[in-house]
Amino acid sequence: MTVTQRDLLRVRAFVFDVDGTLILSESPDWSGAIPLPGAVELLTWLNQHGYPFALFTSGSTELPGTYAARLRAAGLPVADWQVVTTGVTAAEIIATEYPGRAVFVLGERGTREPLLARGIPVVEGEDGKHAGVVLVGWSRSLTYDQLDIACRAVWNGADLLVTSAARAFVSKQGLRPGWSWSIAVAIAETTGKAPRVVGKPSVEALRAVARLLGTVPADVAVVGDDPDLELRMGREAGSVTIQVRTGRGSEPVETPEIGDLVIRGVDELLVLLHAIRAKEDAPDE
Amino acid sequence: MTVTQRDLLRVRAFVFDVDGTLILSESPDWSGAIPLPGAVELLTWLNQHGYPFALFTSGSTELPGTYAARLRAAGLPVADWQVVTTGVTAAEIIATEYPGRAVFVLGERGTREPLLARGIPVVEGEDGKHAGVVLVGWSRSLTYDQLDIACRAVWNGADLLVTSAARAFVSKQGLRPGWSWSIAVAIAETTGKAPRVVGKPSVEALRAVARLLGTVPADVAVVGDDPDLELRMGREAGSVTIQVRTGRGSEPVETPEIGDLVIRGVDELLVLLHAIRAKEDAPDE
Repeated sequence: MTVTQRDLLRVRAFVFDVDGTLILSESPDWSGAIPLPGAVELLTWLNQHGYPFALFTSGSTELPGTYAARLRAAGLPVADWQVVTTGVTAAEIIATEYPGRAVFVLGERGTREPLLARGIPVVEGEDGKHAGVVLVGWSRSLTYDQLDIACRAVWNGADLLVTSAARAFVSKQGLRPGWSWSIAVAIAETTGKAPRVVGKPSVEALRAVARLLGTVPADVAVVGDDPDLELRMGREAGSVTIQVRTGRGSEPVETPEIGDLVIRGVDELLVLLHAIRAKEDAPDE
Repeated sequence: MTVTQRDLLRVRAFVFDVDGTLILSESPDWSGAIPLPGAVELLTWLNQHGYPFALFTSGSTELPGTYAARLRAAGLPVADWQVVTTGVTAAEIIATEYPGRAVFVLGERGTREPLLARGIPVVEGEDGKHAGVVLVGWSRSLTYDQLDIACRAVWNGADLLVTSAARAFVSKQGLRPGWSWSIAVAIAETTGKAPRVVGKPSVEALRAVARLLGTVPADVAVVGDDPDLELRMGREAGSVTIQVRTGRGSEPVETPEIGDLVIRGVDELLVLLHAIRAKEDAPDE
Protein backbone atom coordinates (compact mmCIF):
# COMPACT_ATOMS: atom_id res chain seq x y z
CA MET A 1 0.00 0.00 0.00
CA THR A 2 1.42 3.42 -1.00
CA VAL A 3 1.76 6.44 1.24
CA THR A 4 -1.09 8.08 -0.63
CA GLN A 5 -3.42 5.16 -0.12
CA ARG A 6 -2.60 5.15 3.57
CA ASP A 7 -3.32 8.91 3.66
CA LEU A 8 -6.64 8.38 1.93
CA LEU A 9 -7.59 5.66 4.43
CA ARG A 10 -7.60 8.20 7.26
CA VAL A 11 -9.84 10.61 5.39
CA ARG A 12 -13.27 10.97 7.01
CA ALA A 13 -14.57 13.94 4.99
CA PHE A 14 -13.79 15.95 1.86
CA VAL A 15 -13.51 19.69 1.27
CA PHE A 16 -13.62 20.65 -2.40
CA ASP A 17 -12.72 23.79 -4.23
CA VAL A 18 -15.39 24.39 -6.86
CA ASP A 19 -14.21 26.40 -9.87
CA GLY A 20 -11.55 24.44 -11.77
CA THR A 21 -11.95 21.43 -9.51
CA LEU A 22 -15.58 20.30 -9.84
CA ILE A 23 -16.87 22.67 -12.51
CA LEU A 24 -15.82 25.09 -15.20
CA SER A 25 -17.83 28.25 -15.35
CA GLU A 26 -18.11 31.21 -17.66
CA SER A 27 -18.88 33.64 -14.86
CA PRO A 28 -17.86 33.95 -11.20
CA ASP A 29 -21.46 33.34 -10.09
CA TRP A 30 -21.41 29.83 -11.68
CA SER A 31 -24.23 30.52 -14.08
CA GLY A 32 -23.98 27.98 -16.87
CA ALA A 33 -21.51 25.82 -14.93
CA ILE A 34 -20.28 22.62 -16.62
CA PRO A 35 -19.22 19.71 -14.40
CA LEU A 36 -15.65 18.50 -14.91
CA PRO A 37 -15.20 14.79 -15.76
CA GLY A 38 -16.04 12.56 -12.82
CA ALA A 39 -17.41 15.35 -10.62
CA VAL A 40 -21.03 14.15 -10.65
CA GLU A 41 -20.00 10.53 -10.16
CA LEU A 42 -17.58 11.35 -7.35
CA LEU A 43 -20.05 13.39 -5.30
CA THR A 44 -22.75 10.75 -5.87
CA TRP A 45 -20.35 8.05 -4.65
CA LEU A 46 -19.40 10.09 -1.54
CA ASN A 47 -23.06 10.62 -0.70
CA GLN A 48 -23.74 6.89 -1.13
CA HIS A 49 -20.79 5.82 0.99
CA GLY A 50 -21.44 8.22 3.85
CA TYR A 51 -18.52 10.59 3.39
CA PRO A 52 -19.51 14.08 4.47
CA PHE A 53 -18.23 16.71 2.07
CA ALA A 54 -18.41 20.46 1.53
CA LEU A 55 -17.79 22.68 -1.46
CA PHE A 56 -15.81 25.61 -0.08
CA THR A 57 -15.78 28.76 -2.21
CA SER A 58 -14.22 32.18 -1.84
CA GLY A 59 -17.44 33.79 -3.08
CA SER A 60 -19.36 35.87 -0.56
CA THR A 61 -21.75 37.59 -2.95
CA GLU A 62 -24.55 35.04 -2.99
CA LEU A 63 -26.10 32.77 -0.41
CA PRO A 64 -25.18 29.06 -0.31
CA GLY A 65 -28.65 28.06 -1.51
CA THR A 66 -28.27 30.13 -4.66
CA TYR A 67 -24.93 28.55 -5.51
CA ALA A 68 -26.20 25.07 -4.66
CA ALA A 69 -29.21 25.47 -6.96
CA ARG A 70 -26.90 26.40 -9.85
CA LEU A 71 -24.71 23.39 -9.17
CA ARG A 72 -27.72 21.08 -9.00
CA ALA A 73 -28.86 22.54 -12.33
CA ALA A 74 -25.46 21.46 -13.67
CA GLY A 75 -26.09 17.93 -12.34
CA LEU A 76 -24.04 17.94 -9.14
CA PRO A 77 -25.78 16.23 -6.18
CA VAL A 78 -25.24 19.02 -3.66
CA ALA A 79 -27.49 20.09 -0.78
CA ASP A 80 -27.63 23.76 0.22
CA TRP A 81 -25.69 23.16 3.43
CA GLN A 82 -22.90 21.49 1.50
CA VAL A 83 -21.97 24.76 -0.17
CA VAL A 84 -19.84 26.75 2.24
CA THR A 85 -19.22 30.38 1.36
CA THR A 86 -16.87 32.71 3.21
CA GLY A 87 -20.01 34.28 4.64
CA VAL A 88 -20.66 30.88 6.26
CA THR A 89 -17.11 30.42 7.58
CA ALA A 90 -17.24 33.98 8.93
CA ALA A 91 -20.46 33.14 10.79
CA GLU A 92 -19.01 29.86 12.10
CA ILE A 93 -15.84 31.59 13.34
CA ILE A 94 -17.76 34.48 14.92
CA ALA A 95 -20.28 32.14 16.61
CA THR A 96 -17.46 30.03 18.03
CA GLU A 97 -14.78 32.56 18.88
CA TYR A 98 -16.69 35.78 19.48
CA PRO A 99 -19.89 34.55 21.16
CA GLY A 100 -22.34 37.34 21.98
CA ARG A 101 -20.45 40.00 20.08
CA ALA A 102 -22.40 42.18 17.67
CA VAL A 103 -21.13 42.46 14.12
CA PHE A 104 -20.91 45.50 11.84
CA VAL A 105 -20.94 44.29 8.24
CA LEU A 106 -19.38 45.99 5.24
CA GLY A 107 -20.80 43.78 2.53
CA GLU A 108 -23.98 42.50 1.01
CA ARG A 109 -26.45 39.73 1.73
CA GLY A 110 -23.95 36.96 1.06
CA THR A 111 -21.92 38.26 4.00
CA ARG A 112 -24.80 39.41 6.24
CA GLU A 113 -27.42 36.66 6.00
CA PRO A 114 -25.32 33.71 7.15
CA LEU A 115 -24.73 35.69 10.37
CA LEU A 116 -28.45 36.27 10.86
CA ALA A 117 -29.12 32.60 10.11
CA ARG A 118 -26.85 31.73 13.03
CA GLY A 119 -28.59 34.20 15.33
CA ILE A 120 -25.53 36.46 15.50
CA PRO A 121 -26.51 40.07 16.28
CA VAL A 122 -25.83 42.37 13.35
CA VAL A 123 -25.79 46.12 14.03
CA GLU A 124 -26.56 48.79 11.47
CA GLY A 125 -25.74 52.48 11.08
CA GLU A 126 -24.35 54.50 13.97
CA ASP A 127 -24.79 51.56 16.38
CA GLY A 128 -22.05 49.89 14.38
CA LYS A 129 -19.39 51.76 16.28
CA HIS A 130 -20.16 49.65 19.35
CA ALA A 131 -19.83 46.38 17.42
CA GLY A 132 -17.38 43.78 18.72
CA VAL A 133 -16.51 42.57 15.23
CA VAL A 134 -16.19 44.37 11.89
CA LEU A 135 -16.67 41.93 9.03
CA VAL A 136 -15.64 43.00 5.53
CA GLY A 137 -17.03 41.04 2.59
CA TRP A 138 -17.67 41.55 -1.08
CA SER A 139 -19.68 44.62 -1.97
CA ARG A 140 -20.23 47.01 -4.85
CA SER A 141 -19.76 50.20 -2.87
CA LEU A 142 -18.45 51.84 0.27
CA THR A 143 -19.54 55.15 1.77
CA TYR A 144 -17.49 57.42 3.99
CA ASP A 145 -20.02 56.90 6.77
CA GLN A 146 -19.52 53.14 6.60
CA LEU A 147 -15.74 53.49 6.69
CA ASP A 148 -16.07 55.93 9.58
CA ILE A 149 -18.25 53.56 11.62
CA ALA A 150 -16.00 50.58 10.87
CA CYS A 151 -12.88 52.49 11.97
CA ARG A 152 -14.54 53.74 15.13
CA ALA A 153 -15.65 50.24 16.02
CA VAL A 154 -12.06 49.05 15.63
CA TRP A 155 -10.73 52.02 17.62
CA ASN A 156 -13.27 51.00 20.28
CA GLY A 157 -11.80 47.49 20.37
CA ALA A 158 -13.59 45.51 17.65
CA ASP A 159 -11.73 42.80 15.77
CA LEU A 160 -11.37 43.17 12.00
CA LEU A 161 -12.37 40.13 9.93
CA VAL A 162 -12.28 39.85 6.15
CA THR A 163 -13.73 37.14 3.91
CA SER A 164 -10.90 37.11 1.37
CA ALA A 165 -7.20 37.90 1.17
CA ALA A 166 -7.25 38.09 -2.63
CA ARG A 167 -5.57 41.26 -3.90
CA ALA A 168 -6.91 40.54 -7.37
CA PHE A 169 -8.71 37.83 -9.31
CA VAL A 170 -8.79 36.70 -12.91
CA SER A 171 -11.97 37.28 -14.90
CA LYS A 172 -12.96 37.11 -18.52
CA GLN A 173 -12.18 40.86 -18.60
CA GLY A 174 -8.68 40.22 -17.29
CA LEU A 175 -7.26 40.96 -13.85
CA ARG A 176 -9.64 42.73 -11.50
CA PRO A 177 -9.06 44.08 -8.00
CA GLY A 178 -10.31 42.22 -4.96
CA TRP A 179 -12.78 44.31 -3.01
CA SER A 180 -12.95 42.83 0.49
CA TRP A 181 -9.20 42.74 0.98
CA SER A 182 -8.73 46.28 -0.41
CA ILE A 183 -11.28 47.74 1.98
CA ALA A 184 -9.95 45.72 4.93
CA VAL A 185 -6.46 47.08 4.18
CA ALA A 186 -7.86 50.62 4.10
CA ILE A 187 -9.34 50.10 7.58
CA ALA A 188 -6.15 48.44 8.79
CA GLU A 189 -4.06 51.37 7.54
CA THR A 190 -6.22 53.84 9.45
CA THR A 191 -6.63 51.87 12.67
CA GLY A 192 -3.41 49.87 12.87
CA LYS A 193 -5.47 46.68 13.39
CA ALA A 194 -4.38 43.69 11.33
CA PRO A 195 -7.24 42.01 9.45
CA ARG A 196 -8.00 38.37 10.17
CA VAL A 197 -8.89 36.31 7.11
CA VAL A 198 -11.91 34.02 7.51
CA GLY A 199 -11.76 32.61 3.96
CA LYS A 200 -9.08 30.75 1.98
CA PRO A 201 -6.21 30.28 2.63
CA SER A 202 -6.69 30.72 6.35
CA VAL A 203 -6.32 27.57 8.44
CA GLU A 204 -9.07 28.82 10.72
CA ALA A 205 -11.43 28.89 7.76
CA LEU A 206 -10.68 25.24 7.04
CA ARG A 207 -11.11 24.41 10.70
CA ALA A 208 -14.55 26.05 10.50
CA VAL A 209 -15.50 24.00 7.42
CA ALA A 210 -14.30 20.80 9.09
CA ARG A 211 -16.34 21.66 12.19
CA LEU A 212 -19.44 22.07 10.00
CA LEU A 213 -18.71 18.53 8.72
CA GLY A 214 -18.37 17.23 12.29
CA THR A 215 -14.65 16.61 12.07
CA VAL A 216 -11.20 18.25 12.22
CA PRO A 217 -8.74 19.24 9.46
CA ALA A 218 -6.45 16.25 10.17
CA ASP A 219 -9.24 13.90 9.08
CA VAL A 220 -10.14 15.87 5.99
CA ALA A 221 -8.93 15.69 2.41
CA VAL A 222 -8.75 19.07 0.72
CA VAL A 223 -9.20 18.85 -3.04
CA GLY A 224 -8.36 21.82 -5.25
CA ASP A 225 -6.41 23.29 -8.13
CA ASP A 226 -4.89 26.42 -6.58
CA PRO A 227 -1.53 25.95 -4.83
CA ASP A 228 -1.85 29.34 -3.09
CA LEU A 229 -5.38 28.88 -1.80
CA GLU A 230 -6.98 25.58 -0.83
CA LEU A 231 -3.84 23.49 -1.15
CA ARG A 232 -1.74 25.80 0.99
CA MET A 233 -4.58 25.96 3.49
CA GLY A 234 -4.92 22.18 3.63
CA ARG A 235 -1.19 21.67 3.97
CA GLU A 236 -0.89 24.16 6.83
CA ALA A 237 -3.88 22.62 8.60
CA GLY A 238 -2.43 19.10 8.42
CA SER A 239 -5.10 17.79 6.05
CA VAL A 240 -4.47 15.38 3.19
CA THR A 241 -4.11 17.56 0.10
CA ILE A 242 -5.21 16.40 -3.31
CA GLN A 243 -4.16 18.61 -6.20
CA VAL A 244 -6.09 18.50 -9.46
CA ARG A 245 -4.73 19.97 -12.66
CA THR A 246 -8.02 20.70 -14.37
CA GLY A 247 -7.63 24.36 -13.41
CA ARG A 248 -9.26 26.90 -15.63
CA GLY A 249 -9.63 25.03 -18.91
CA SER A 250 -9.51 21.69 -20.64
CA GLU A 251 -5.70 21.66 -20.74
CA PRO A 252 -3.92 20.52 -17.59
CA VAL A 253 -2.54 23.47 -15.63
CA GLU A 254 1.18 23.65 -14.94
CA THR A 255 1.35 24.59 -11.28
CA PRO A 256 3.92 23.65 -8.65
CA GLU A 257 3.08 20.24 -7.23
CA ILE A 258 2.37 20.80 -3.58
CA GLY A 259 -0.40 18.26 -2.99
CA ASP A 260 0.16 14.99 -1.12
CA LEU A 261 -1.43 13.53 -4.21
CA VAL A 262 -1.38 15.15 -7.64
CA ILE A 263 -3.95 13.92 -10.16
CA ARG A 264 -5.31 15.08 -13.46
CA GLY A 265 -8.84 15.55 -12.24
CA VAL A 266 -11.45 14.34 -9.78
CA ASP A 267 -12.26 11.36 -12.01
CA GLU A 268 -8.92 9.89 -10.90
CA LEU A 269 -9.84 10.45 -7.28
CA LEU A 270 -12.95 8.33 -7.73
CA VAL A 271 -10.85 5.48 -9.16
CA LEU A 272 -8.54 5.66 -6.14
CA LEU A 273 -11.42 5.66 -3.69
CA HIS A 274 -12.94 2.64 -5.41
CA ALA A 275 -9.66 0.78 -5.08
CA ILE A 276 -9.21 1.69 -1.43
CA ARG A 277 -12.75 0.73 -0.60
CA ALA A 278 -12.23 -2.60 -2.29
CA LYS A 279 -9.09 -3.13 -0.22
CA GLU A 280 -10.85 -2.13 2.99
CA ASP A 281 -13.61 -4.58 2.27
CA ALA A 282 -11.10 -7.33 1.49
CA PRO A 283 -9.36 -9.27 4.32
CA ASP A 284 -6.10 -7.63 5.41
CA GLU A 285 -3.01 -9.01 3.66
CA MET B 1 20.51 91.08 14.11
CA THR B 2 19.39 87.57 15.17
CA VAL B 3 19.44 84.46 13.01
CA THR B 4 15.68 84.66 12.80
CA GLN B 5 15.69 88.24 11.62
CA ARG B 6 18.25 87.35 8.95
CA ASP B 7 16.03 84.41 7.92
CA LEU B 8 13.02 86.65 7.66
CA LEU B 9 14.96 89.11 5.50
CA ARG B 10 15.29 86.53 2.75
CA VAL B 11 11.58 85.72 2.74
CA ARG B 12 9.87 86.80 -0.48
CA ALA B 13 6.48 85.09 0.05
CA PHE B 14 4.42 83.42 2.76
CA VAL B 15 2.55 80.12 2.83
CA PHE B 16 0.08 79.85 5.68
CA ASP B 17 -1.75 76.98 7.22
CA VAL B 18 -5.32 78.07 7.88
CA ASP B 19 -7.04 76.20 10.74
CA GLY B 20 -5.27 76.94 14.01
CA THR B 21 -2.94 79.43 12.38
CA LEU B 22 -5.14 82.15 10.89
CA ILE B 23 -8.58 81.08 12.07
CA LEU B 24 -10.41 78.86 14.51
CA SER B 25 -13.39 77.07 13.07
CA GLU B 26 -16.21 74.97 14.40
CA SER B 27 -16.39 72.80 11.31
CA PRO B 28 -13.86 71.55 8.76
CA ASP B 29 -15.51 73.60 6.01
CA TRP B 30 -14.67 76.86 7.86
CA SER B 31 -18.28 77.90 8.27
CA GLY B 32 -18.39 80.43 11.11
CA ALA B 33 -14.63 80.88 11.14
CA ILE B 34 -13.17 83.32 13.68
CA PRO B 35 -9.86 85.04 12.84
CA LEU B 36 -7.07 84.50 15.35
CA PRO B 37 -5.49 87.63 16.86
CA GLY B 38 -3.43 89.55 14.30
CA ALA B 39 -4.54 87.45 11.32
CA VAL B 40 -6.56 90.18 9.59
CA GLU B 41 -3.86 92.79 10.28
CA LEU B 42 -1.02 90.53 9.10
CA LEU B 43 -2.64 89.63 5.77
CA THR B 44 -3.60 93.27 5.21
CA TRP B 45 0.00 94.32 5.86
CA LEU B 46 1.38 91.65 3.49
CA ASN B 47 -0.98 92.79 0.74
CA GLN B 48 0.06 96.42 1.31
CA HIS B 49 3.77 95.67 1.28
CA GLY B 50 3.71 93.48 -1.83
CA TYR B 51 4.41 90.10 -0.22
CA PRO B 52 2.65 87.36 -2.17
CA PHE B 53 1.05 84.80 0.10
CA ALA B 54 -1.11 81.71 -0.11
CA LEU B 55 -3.32 79.91 2.37
CA PHE B 56 -2.56 76.23 1.84
CA THR B 57 -5.14 73.78 3.15
CA SER B 58 -5.44 70.00 3.17
CA GLY B 59 -9.12 70.31 2.24
CA SER B 60 -10.10 69.03 -1.18
CA THR B 61 -13.87 68.97 -0.70
CA GLU B 62 -14.68 72.52 -1.80
CA LEU B 63 -13.32 74.86 -4.44
CA PRO B 64 -10.89 77.65 -3.47
CA GLY B 65 -13.51 80.34 -4.19
CA THR B 66 -15.89 78.79 -1.66
CA TYR B 67 -13.27 78.72 1.07
CA ALA B 68 -12.08 82.24 0.19
CA ALA B 69 -15.61 83.63 0.45
CA ARG B 70 -15.98 82.15 3.94
CA LEU B 71 -12.66 83.65 5.02
CA ARG B 72 -13.61 87.05 3.61
CA ALA B 73 -16.89 86.79 5.53
CA ALA B 74 -14.70 86.33 8.63
CA GLY B 75 -12.79 89.52 7.74
CA LEU B 76 -9.63 88.09 6.15
CA PRO B 77 -8.48 89.96 3.02
CA VAL B 78 -8.04 86.90 0.78
CA ALA B 79 -8.59 86.62 -2.98
CA ASP B 80 -9.88 83.36 -4.43
CA TRP B 81 -6.50 82.49 -5.98
CA GLN B 82 -4.77 82.91 -2.62
CA VAL B 83 -6.56 79.86 -1.24
CA VAL B 84 -4.69 76.79 -2.42
CA THR B 85 -6.42 73.46 -1.89
CA THR B 86 -4.84 70.08 -2.52
CA GLY B 87 -7.03 69.96 -5.63
CA VAL B 88 -5.04 72.99 -6.82
CA THR B 89 -1.62 71.54 -5.96
CA ALA B 90 -2.64 68.30 -7.67
CA ALA B 91 -3.53 70.27 -10.82
CA GLU B 92 -0.28 72.26 -10.66
CA ILE B 93 1.81 69.10 -10.25
CA ILE B 94 -0.05 67.23 -13.01
CA ALA B 95 0.16 70.21 -15.43
CA THR B 96 3.90 70.53 -14.79
CA GLU B 97 5.06 66.94 -14.44
CA TYR B 98 2.51 64.94 -16.44
CA PRO B 99 1.73 67.25 -19.36
CA GLY B 100 -0.83 65.86 -21.77
CA ARG B 101 -1.77 62.94 -19.54
CA ALA B 102 -5.45 62.29 -18.93
CA VAL B 103 -6.59 61.96 -15.31
CA PHE B 104 -9.07 59.55 -13.74
CA VAL B 105 -10.45 61.14 -10.58
CA LEU B 106 -11.74 59.36 -7.50
CA GLY B 107 -13.17 62.34 -5.68
CA GLU B 108 -15.62 65.17 -5.92
CA ARG B 109 -15.67 68.63 -7.43
CA GLY B 110 -12.97 69.98 -5.14
CA THR B 111 -10.58 67.48 -6.69
CA ARG B 112 -11.95 67.49 -10.25
CA GLU B 113 -12.64 71.14 -11.06
CA PRO B 114 -9.16 72.56 -10.45
CA LEU B 115 -7.96 70.10 -13.12
CA LEU B 116 -10.60 71.26 -15.60
CA ALA B 117 -9.76 74.90 -14.79
CA ARG B 118 -6.18 74.17 -15.89
CA GLY B 119 -7.33 72.49 -19.11
CA ILE B 120 -6.15 69.06 -17.93
CA PRO B 121 -8.11 66.24 -19.63
CA VAL B 122 -10.27 64.35 -17.16
CA VAL B 123 -11.64 60.96 -18.26
CA GLU B 124 -14.79 59.36 -16.94
CA GLY B 125 -16.16 55.83 -16.71
CA GLU B 126 -14.58 53.00 -18.67
CA ASP B 127 -12.23 55.40 -20.48
CA GLY B 128 -10.58 55.89 -17.12
CA LYS B 129 -8.57 52.72 -17.56
CA HIS B 130 -6.48 54.47 -20.22
CA ALA B 131 -5.75 57.45 -17.96
CA GLY B 132 -2.13 58.39 -17.34
CA VAL B 133 -2.80 59.55 -13.80
CA VAL B 134 -5.19 58.32 -11.11
CA LEU B 135 -5.91 61.09 -8.61
CA VAL B 136 -7.56 60.17 -5.31
CA GLY B 137 -9.19 62.97 -3.33
CA TRP B 138 -11.83 63.36 -0.69
CA SER B 139 -15.16 61.73 -1.46
CA ARG B 140 -18.19 60.34 0.31
CA SER B 141 -18.30 57.04 -1.55
CA LEU B 142 -16.47 54.54 -3.71
CA THR B 143 -17.98 51.94 -6.02
CA TYR B 144 -16.41 48.68 -7.12
CA ASP B 145 -16.49 49.92 -10.70
CA GLN B 146 -14.45 52.99 -9.75
CA LEU B 147 -11.91 50.91 -7.87
CA ASP B 148 -11.74 48.51 -10.81
CA ILE B 149 -11.08 51.30 -13.31
CA ALA B 150 -8.51 52.96 -11.06
CA CYS B 151 -6.61 49.68 -10.60
CA ARG B 152 -6.69 48.90 -14.31
CA ALA B 153 -5.35 52.36 -15.12
CA VAL B 154 -2.47 51.78 -12.71
CA TRP B 155 -1.87 48.26 -14.09
CA ASN B 156 -1.76 49.94 -17.51
CA GLY B 157 0.97 52.31 -16.31
CA ALA B 158 -0.82 55.27 -14.69
CA ASP B 159 0.77 57.04 -11.73
CA LEU B 160 -1.16 57.10 -8.46
CA LEU B 161 -1.55 60.52 -6.81
CA VAL B 162 -3.38 61.27 -3.58
CA THR B 163 -4.33 64.62 -2.08
CA SER B 164 -3.67 63.70 1.54
CA ALA B 165 -1.54 61.33 3.57
CA ALA B 166 -3.68 61.73 6.68
CA ARG B 167 -4.66 58.38 8.19
CA ALA B 168 -7.12 60.14 10.46
CA PHE B 169 -8.16 63.61 11.52
CA VAL B 170 -9.61 65.17 14.64
CA SER B 171 -13.18 66.43 14.52
CA LYS B 172 -15.75 67.55 17.04
CA GLN B 173 -16.99 63.95 16.97
CA GLY B 174 -13.51 62.66 17.83
CA LEU B 175 -11.01 60.87 15.62
CA ARG B 176 -12.26 60.09 12.12
CA PRO B 177 -10.61 58.13 9.33
CA GLY B 178 -9.02 59.91 6.40
CA TRP B 179 -10.69 58.94 3.15
CA SER B 180 -8.26 59.81 0.35
CA TRP B 181 -5.31 58.05 1.95
CA SER B 182 -7.36 54.95 2.86
CA ILE B 183 -8.56 54.53 -0.70
CA ALA B 184 -5.13 55.23 -2.17
CA VAL B 185 -3.70 52.54 0.11
CA ALA B 186 -6.38 50.10 -1.08
CA ILE B 187 -5.33 50.74 -4.71
CA ALA B 188 -1.65 50.52 -3.78
CA GLU B 189 -2.21 47.17 -2.06
CA THR B 190 -3.88 45.75 -5.15
CA THR B 191 -1.53 47.19 -7.76
CA GLY B 192 1.79 47.40 -5.93
CA LYS B 193 2.11 51.06 -7.00
CA ALA B 194 3.17 53.48 -4.27
CA PRO B 195 0.93 56.54 -3.96
CA ARG B 196 2.48 59.97 -4.42
CA VAL B 197 1.17 62.63 -2.05
CA VAL B 198 0.32 65.98 -3.65
CA GLY B 199 -0.81 67.68 -0.41
CA LYS B 200 0.89 68.28 2.94
CA PRO B 201 3.49 67.28 4.01
CA SER B 202 4.93 66.59 0.58
CA VAL B 203 7.79 68.85 -0.49
CA GLU B 204 6.47 68.73 -4.04
CA ALA B 205 3.19 70.21 -2.84
CA LEU B 206 5.05 73.13 -1.28
CA ARG B 207 7.09 73.54 -4.46
CA ALA B 208 3.79 73.74 -6.36
CA VAL B 209 2.44 76.40 -4.01
CA ALA B 210 5.67 78.41 -4.27
CA ARG B 211 5.49 78.17 -8.07
CA LEU B 212 1.95 79.56 -7.96
CA LEU B 213 3.42 82.49 -5.98
CA GLY B 214 6.18 82.97 -8.57
CA THR B 215 8.97 81.78 -6.31
CA VAL B 216 10.72 78.72 -4.84
CA PRO B 217 10.52 77.10 -1.38
CA ALA B 218 13.90 78.52 -0.29
CA ASP B 219 12.46 82.06 -0.52
CA VAL B 220 9.23 81.19 1.28
CA ALA B 221 8.26 81.30 4.95
CA VAL B 222 5.89 78.51 5.93
CA VAL B 223 3.67 79.45 8.86
CA GLY B 224 1.69 76.79 10.68
CA ASP B 225 0.84 74.99 13.90
CA ASP B 226 1.29 71.33 12.96
CA PRO B 227 4.81 69.91 13.38
CA ASP B 228 3.93 66.87 11.25
CA LEU B 229 2.35 68.73 8.36
CA GLU B 230 3.29 72.23 7.19
CA LEU B 231 6.31 72.62 9.45
CA ARG B 232 7.85 69.33 8.43
CA MET B 233 7.11 70.15 4.79
CA GLY B 234 8.72 73.59 5.07
CA ARG B 235 11.75 72.24 6.86
CA GLU B 236 12.33 69.51 4.28
CA ALA B 237 11.91 71.99 1.43
CA GLY B 238 14.48 74.43 2.87
CA SER B 239 11.93 77.15 3.64
CA VAL B 240 11.96 79.36 6.71
CA THR B 241 9.54 77.72 9.15
CA ILE B 242 7.48 79.76 11.59
CA GLN B 243 5.63 77.76 14.21
CA VAL B 244 2.57 79.22 15.91
CA ARG B 245 1.14 77.76 19.09
CA THR B 246 -2.44 78.92 18.62
CA GLY B 247 -3.36 75.41 17.54
CA ARG B 248 -6.91 74.31 18.11
CA GLY B 249 -8.02 76.57 20.94
CA SER B 250 -7.28 79.68 22.92
CA GLU B 251 -4.69 77.88 25.06
CA PRO B 252 -1.19 77.59 23.55
CA VAL B 253 -0.56 74.11 22.19
CA GLU B 254 2.33 72.10 23.58
CA THR B 255 3.99 70.70 20.48
CA PRO B 256 7.65 69.92 19.81
CA GLU B 257 9.42 73.09 18.71
CA ILE B 258 10.60 72.40 15.21
CA GLY B 259 10.17 75.83 13.61
CA ASP B 260 13.10 78.15 12.84
CA LEU B 261 11.01 80.61 14.79
CA VAL B 262 8.43 79.66 17.42
CA ILE B 263 5.86 82.31 18.33
CA ARG B 264 2.59 82.40 20.19
CA GLY B 265 0.54 83.46 17.19
CA VAL B 266 0.59 85.41 13.94
CA ASP B 267 0.22 88.72 15.83
CA GLU B 268 3.85 88.26 16.90
CA LEU B 269 4.87 87.69 13.31
CA LEU B 270 3.42 91.04 12.34
CA VAL B 271 5.47 92.75 15.09
CA LEU B 272 8.63 91.07 13.78
CA LEU B 273 7.91 92.07 10.20
CA HIS B 274 7.32 95.66 11.30
CA ALA B 275 10.68 95.70 13.05
CA ILE B 276 12.55 94.20 10.10
CA ARG B 277 10.93 96.58 7.68
CA ALA B 278 11.95 99.49 9.90
CA LYS B 279 15.53 98.18 9.91
CA GLU B 280 15.52 97.68 6.16
CA ASP B 281 14.35 101.25 5.65
CA ALA B 282 16.95 102.61 8.10
CA PRO B 283 20.63 103.04 7.01
CA ASP B 284 22.72 99.91 7.65
CA GLU B 285 24.56 99.92 11.00
